[in-house]
Parts: sequence; structure tokens; C-alpha cells
Amino acid sequence: MKKSIIKQLEPLFYPKSVAVIGASNNPAKWGFSIFNDLLVKGFKGDLYPVNKNEEKISGITCYKSVKDVPKPVDLAVIVVPAKIVPPIMKECVEKGVKTAVIISAGFREAGREGQKLEEEVVRIARQGGIRFVGPNCFGIINPFSNLSTTGLMSLYITPYVPKGSIAVITQSGNLGTFMLKLAFERGFGISKFVSSGNEADLHFEDHLEYMAEDPDTKVIVGYVEELREGRRFFEMAKEITEKKPIVILKAGRTKTGHKAAKAHTGALAGSDGVYDACFKQAGVIRVEEIQDLFDVAVTLVSQPLPRGNRVGIVTGGGGFGVVAADMCEELGLEIPPLTQETLQRLNQRLPPRWSHSNPVDLVGTMEYSYVCIGTLLKDENVDSVLAISSVGSPSKIFDQYPPAIRNQLAEFAEMMVEWESTRGVTGLIERIRKYQKPVILAAPPTSREESEAIREFEKNGIVVHPTPERAISLLTYITKYAEDRKKKSGAQNHNSFSRYSP
Amino acid sequence: MKKSIIKQLEPLFYPKSVAVIGASNNPAKWGFSIFNDLLVKGFKGDLYPVNKNEEKISGITCYKSVKDVPKPVDLAVIVVPAKIVPPIMKECVEKGVKTAVIISAGFREAGREGQKLEEEVVRIARQGGIRFVGPNCFGIINPFSNLSTTGLMSLYITPYVPKGSIAVITQSGNLGTFMLKLAFERGFGISKFVSSGNEADLHFEDHLEYMAEDPDTKVIVGYVEELREGRRFFEMAKEITEKKPIVILKAGRTKTGHKAAKAHTGALAGSDGVYDACFKQAGVIRVEEIQDLFDVAVTLVSQPLPRGNRVGIVTGGGGFGVVAADMCEELGLEIPPLTQETLQRLNQRLPPRWSHSNPVDLVGTMEYSYVCIGTLLKDENVDSVLAISSVGSPSKIFDQYPPAIRNQLAEFAEMMVEWESTRGVTGLIERIRKYQKPVILAAPPTSREESEAIREFEKNGIVVHPTPERAISLLTYITKYAEDRKKKSGAQNHNSFSRYSP
Repeated sequence: MKKSIIKQLEPLFYPKSVAVIGASNNPAKWGFSIFNDLLVKGFKGDLYPVNKNEEKISGITCYKSVKDVPKPVDLAVIVVPAKIVPPIMKECVEKGVKTAVIISAGFREAGREGQKLEEEVVRIARQGGIRFVGPNCFGIINPFSNLSTTGLMSLYITPYVPKGSIAVITQSGNLGTFMLKLAFERGFGISKFVSSGNEADLHFEDHLEYMAEDPDTKVIVGYVEELREGRRFFEMAKEITEKKPIVILKAGRTKTGHKAAKAHTGALAGSDGVYDACFKQAGVIRVEEIQDLFDVAVTLVSQPLPRGNRVGIVTGGGGFGVVAADMCEELGLEIPPLTQETLQRLNQRLPPRWSHSNPVDLVGTMEYSYVCIGTLLKDENVDSVLAISSVGSPSKIFDQYPPAIRNQLAEFAEMMVEWESTRGVTGLIERIRKYQKPVILAAPPTSREESEAIREFEKNGIVVHPTPERAISLLTYITKYAEDRKKKSGAQNHNSFSRYSP
Repeated sequence: MKKSIIKQLEPLFYPKSVAVIGASNNPAKWGFSIFNDLLVKGFKGDLYPVNKNEEKISGITCYKSVKDVPKPVDLAVIVVPAKIVPPIMKECVEKGVKTAVIISAGFREAGREGQKLEEEVVRIARQGGIRFVGPNCFGIINPFSNLSTTGLMSLYITPYVPKGSIAVITQSGNLGTFMLKLAFERGFGISKFVSSGNEADLHFEDHLEYMAEDPDTKVIVGYVEELREGRRFFEMAKEITEKKPIVILKAGRTKTGHKAAKAHTGALAGSDGVYDACFKQAGVIRVEEIQDLFDVAVTLVSQPLPRGNRVGIVTGGGGFGVVAADMCEELGLEIPPLTQETLQRLNQRLPPRWSHSNPVDLVGTMEYSYVCIGTLLKDENVDSVLAISSVGSPSKIFDQYPPAIRNQLAEFAEMMVEWESTRGVTGLIERIRKYQKPVILAAPPTSREESEAIREFEKNGIVVHPTPERAISLLTYITKYAEDRKKKSGAQNHNSFSRYSP
């Protein structure tokens, strides 16, 4: 790979100084939220608002032009009307700015006029040696340098994106926002975030190359409408997926989707079959739904990969077991018979009416759930465990009962809460670490407001899926990836990116 | 239909007196929670605990045998070990009990021994004229008679199931619990609930026949592993779906699923193709995922049916539009061109950079979302609207900012909150009612704890789906059902069960 891109993007992700051109004091403008986003997130370098009509912005001295800024500028964030972006870019060149993020829309995606503007901006930037993200984008985030140049949505929905090991490259700002919201709400960490917009200069491939070398990034997640450098992507991806998984949602699969993609970023999405074959050969995990992007990535960075496709299922009740068995078979996962040893162990723990086979139906005895997960993980026939049962904490519900009943149940409630929130999480993590096999949890429904336990699981990188279907879909992705990876690289670096690996 | 079943099941769902045989003072026993469930839900008739070892249960005089109860018993809830169920049933016959629910497990699903027990119980009940639900079931609920005979799970997870118009018949207790939890947490109502268990006496078909005649039921939801009376089901369903939709999840589709179903309720699930053809011909909505059961039912009881498959899409950003367009095409929904009139109207409202086509990309101007939904509903090319944007309230997030920024944003925050929680819900309902077309909402992600708005929507029967994919899947189900129904019955009673119909 050409390492030059890494050097070129260094001042983009780790700038010593940032100028926001089009910064504003008006809360209704993006120039307001972008500037304040940098302020709020605690960017440590020099920060310069630029706006020819203001003296100060958020109390900080404002410059009429980027050329007036007294010190060098590593990164210019540009949020002015499309028409004046070319002269602004010219000023950036004259100032010696190294990199830029153009938030402004109204370029290629808006028709011929816009396309000409975009070409002019690229010409000026190339001549001046400026590499830039956008236009028509949502900005970039690097929690490791307290850098966040995203706008309004970020300001009120994703205040603090935690540091983590997932890099997001997205050709859609709102898909990106969705992932940031998930990261914020569920406490998962991001290493870098790029909304690549129209990709007039820097392409998806450039960002991919950077993330491949970024030591903070363990998994790369991408939303793609169009790849401009298919061959380059393919060659890079083949190499990268040996070390870091790439998880991609490719949109614009259909004619209708094509058309929408063109209106969106001006993308000319190519044949879906070609993309599909390319992803498959390069070892890219292609997901189907938006939330899979995040769920797959989080599971990859936190849990070991399964060594095969044989799933042990633990369920609080039979119906979920039947639904899960159906879906596993349909998706190519096997539900193996359990060893005699496992059956004996379960016989010792469970009431006689248990199912005596895989899926293991706990017939309502939820208190045995974690013990059974451990027993299944130990079974040599089992490569991963799918656990379908409640992880929620009942304490708040108990409060709703009449005092007489509540008192009778107090001790029981306490036991349940203790069991779920303490033994649940720590017990599970111990077992995942011990057996080096993944455990995927489904806890329908997501009674999030009642459940400290779900938060506890998620703090530890364990997604609690709202339905068995979601959990199985996730398990299928990581199982297929693991099989693919094993074929390619052998077992020795099989789980190198997992948090709980030895 | 044979109306006799309606009369036979009257004392089951509207009993004047209930005896709980196996009631207990020990909170760890199901007999405790089942008895207290009846107490807590405020059952108004006579309630008799039966347990030969206790004087009082939860402070109420306890009887050694059902035969000792001084008054007639309409319904006996039996929660004693399987082995003694036959003699208990004999006592019920001698007492003249009219109906029963057998919660106890250990029958057909547990092997030959259990099957013999089950046959004996049926023989005794038939001779004595008792119709019963179960065994190996989770009980029944009728919020209209404050009757709830479900066990432990119900006690701490679904304390109060609201009255509503969705009947649930489930061959899985835990699938049923899942739906009850959804009902409780999201404020949706249930008309009747039956966990049918092994169906030794009363079959799925009997319950279906009852719900078809139940005036409180508008939509019937079913989880099926096996239909014992396929022909009867088919003939009834054909008739029922003319008046009330039937939504079914049929499990045991695969070999693995078959096996699990057999271990679960002893079901011998038949060929999936046969079921599929039967459902299709009978106009049954067959869903694929557990949560579809509830989501489809709720949408059916609250919103008008679409008149065709043409979807207008409003989205806060382009990426979601592309993903939605792809999925709509793949599932047979059309994204029609908008009329000139609509385009003109939208040009007047939206900033020039909007997409100028369907999907309508609001390019981040969320404040226009409801206006655009109205404009699309008015368009004669559009049969339904899919709206993908945030409905959450930002107020709590604003609180996390430093005071300086917070004060600057205070007015803006207030405006957003007011707009979302008030104009959002009422505006949307007005428009749904005016245009008689459905609006399906996707608001990723479900930041439920932050969002009073989502609660407001759900209180009004409008599900807020966490992803566009979920929303489109739901829209596809109701669109196909509407087309089917229209072909059969014409348009006049097309929307008869919807809350917002004229």
C-alpha cells in the first residue's frame, strides 16, 4: 500500500490547529454547531473561527479570512454556501492549509451547475496540495484527538462518542449519525469517523487505507453507495481483512436504489453482482441491514470468533427454541447433538422436564441460565452459544405491586437483581474468556429503561439483541467470517482482535 | 361455524368463580404467582385457593379439595404435578366445574409416560363435560374480566396488560410472554390471551372460533407449531379474514425446527409448503419474525390500510432513502414519481438542495418532516407514507452541555421539544384520518429513555420502528394484506377495523 496517504491524512485526524470557515453565533446555522462541537469536545489545539461579519464567535476572536489567522492551519472546516467554496479554497491554498473538510452541499449531487463547482474546487485543492473530505458531508470525528467537526445532529444527539476500536467510513451522513447514536447510547467506542460525502478528492479507498494502518482501529465499518476505485478497493481489502475485519453495507442494489443514490451523492452505483463477488473474494463481511453494521463490528471487537458453525442454544422457553432452530438451519448454522457428558451435567442441574436435547429448554428456570451456558461452552460439539432469555432486572416492576405482595416478594426480587446484574455479566465474561467461544444474547424485549443489566452487558461489549432473529443473523455473519478467515490464515491469529482473547 | 364453542368458552373467559388448585404461599412456586396474579389483577368473582396442606393462602381461606368449595366453580386453574392431575380432574368433574386451565407440564411433551397421563386427563374431562386449556401452558388472560391466570413471568414482567382489541393465541408460552411484555411496555391493548400448550382438549381452532365472535377482538394473532385440524382451520380462516385479520407466525419450518417443536409441545409439524399454501388461500398474514406478530397487529388496529403498493418516502437524509428504495423494490413496493403539484408544494417549503423526487430527502431540515408527510399523503400517486427521521426529544441531551452552550440553545431546544411531542403526534393523526392512508414511522435508534415522543406515538397506536428495514417489512405485510382483501371484498368494508377510519 502507498503509505503516503497515511502521512497526508495525519493533519486531518490529528491537526494541531483548526479553522472553521463559516463559523456562526446563530444556533440555527450549521456553522454554529460545528464550531461549538469542536469547543464542547475539548479540542486541545488552536481553534480559529472565520466569518467576515463577526468580531467574536462563542467568545473567541474571529477572523475575516483564513489568511488573517496568525498561525499555521492544519485543518480547515468549510461550511459556507457552495458558490463561494472555490474562492474560500483558494484562500486556504494561499494560507498553506494542509487539509480540509467541506461540509457544504450543492455540488455534484445538485446537477450540472454543482458538478462544475465541484470540479473547480478539486482543481484548486490539487494545485495547492490540499487533501479534502466532502463536499456534501457530515464531517469527521477522532475521539483520540478530541476532534469532532460534525454538525447539528451531533450537537444534540451524540454529545460524546466514546473512544474505541471501530472505524466508520460512511457515504451517508445520516447512516453515520445512526451509528454514532448507537455508539453513544450503548456505550460502544469509535476510533475514527468519516462522512465521506461526494468524495470529490479523498475517496472511500483513501480512508480505508488510513484506517488499515491506524493502530487504534480494530474493525472497519463502511456504508457504500459507490466505489470509485473498485480495483484498488479489492486489492487493499484482500490484504486488510487478513488483519482487520471490514464490515460493509452496500446500498443501491436495485434500480430504485440506484436512482435514489444518484440524487443523494451523485453516485453511479455499479452492478450489484460485481460488488457482491468482489466483497466475497476480498473477505469483506457484507451485511444486509443498517444495524448489522454496528452489531457485527461490536461483536468482532469484543468476543472470540467461533471455530465452526455448531450452535448450542439455551432458551427460557420452547417457542423461542423452535423459532431459533428454524432460522439456524435456514442460514446454514448447525444445531449439533450434545455429548453424553453435557447431557449428564444438565440432568444434574435442571428439573426433569427439560428438553434433554439442543436447544436446551430451561422450561422457565431462568436461574440456571448461566450455568447452562457454561456447560454448553464446554461441550466439544459446540462452537458458539446462543442464549435466549431475560437479562432484565425486575426490581422496578416489583415496585408496582400492592405492598402485601411486594413484601412477600422482596427477598426474591433482591435475589433476581443480584443474580442478573452481577453474576450475569461477570459470569458470562469469565466463561467467554475461559472457553474462547462467543456467546450471543437475545433478551426480548429490550426493556431498556428497566434494565441495568443490559447496560452492564453493553459496557462490556456484549450486545443484547431484542429478538432471537437479530441474534442469529449476527451469529451467522461472524460464523461465516470466521470460517472464511480460518481457511485463509489458519488458526494462529484467528482471534487477534478480540478483547477477551488470550 | 358451530356456535356451541362460544357458549362452552364463556365460563373460561368470563368465569363467575375461579378455583386455583395447587395455590401456594411459597413465592418460588407457580401456584403462588398464579393465585396472586388473579388477586392483583382484581378478579371480581369468587376466588378459591385449593391446597390440602394450607389453612389460608395470601390471607384467603384455603380448601383441601375443590369439592370442599361451598359454591359452584366455573373455572379451575390446575397447577399440581402431572401425576396427580388425573385424580384432580376427577374431583373437578365431581364438583361440576365447567372449564379448566392446566398449567402443569410433564405430559405429551415429556414422552410415552406423559402421553398416557394426558390421554387419561382428556378421557376424564370429556366424560365429565369439562373443556380445558393446556396442559403444559402458560394460562389465559382476559383484561375485560380482570382475569389473569399466568405465572411467574407475568407477575414481575407484565403486571397490567391494558384492554385492547388484539387477541393472542399462542402454542408457546414464552412467545406469548414476549407479546404481553410488548403490550405492557408500549401501551398496546389485548382483548384475550390464550397459551394453548399441548392442546389436549381445546385446540388452536377452538380458540380461533371464539375470538372470531368476540366483540372486543379486532385482530387475531397466532403462534403456531402444529395445527391439529387443518381443514377446519382453513375453512374458518377464509371466513374470518373477511372481517378480522389473522396474523400468524408458523414455526417448525425446517427439520431442525420440527425436532425442537416436538420436544417443546410434542407437535408433529406438517410440511411447511402445505401450511404456506393454506395460509395464502385463506388470506392469513403469515409473518417471519416474532416481533412482526405484534407490529402488524397494532398497525392493523390503528391505521387505515393502503389502497395500493405505491410508497411515498420522507427521509431526514439521503442514505436512509437509498436503503429504503432498495428494500421497497426487493419486496414489491413501488416508489412512484410525485405529481407536479406535489413537487411544486415541496419546492415552496424545502431548501433548494432537496432531492426533487421520491424519496423526498429533507437534507437535514427535520422541522419540515410533518408538512412533507401531509403533502405526500395528498398526492394521488401515493398509497402510504414511510417517514424516516428522528422523533426523539432532544431536551435531556441538551442538559449534558456546558451552561454557556446550553443557554444559547435553550430556545431552540424548547422549540424542538414542543414541535416533536405535540405537533408530531396530533399532526400525524389528523393527517392519517384526513387522507385515510397509513403513515409508517422509522426513528433510528430507539432512544426510548430520552423520548417522550415515541411513547406519545405508541399511546396512539403508532409503532415507531427502530430501523427503516423493520418499517418497510411491516408496510409490506399490510400492503399485501390490503391488496388481497380488496380483491376479495371490494373497498366498502376495507378499513372497518381501523381506529382512525371514518
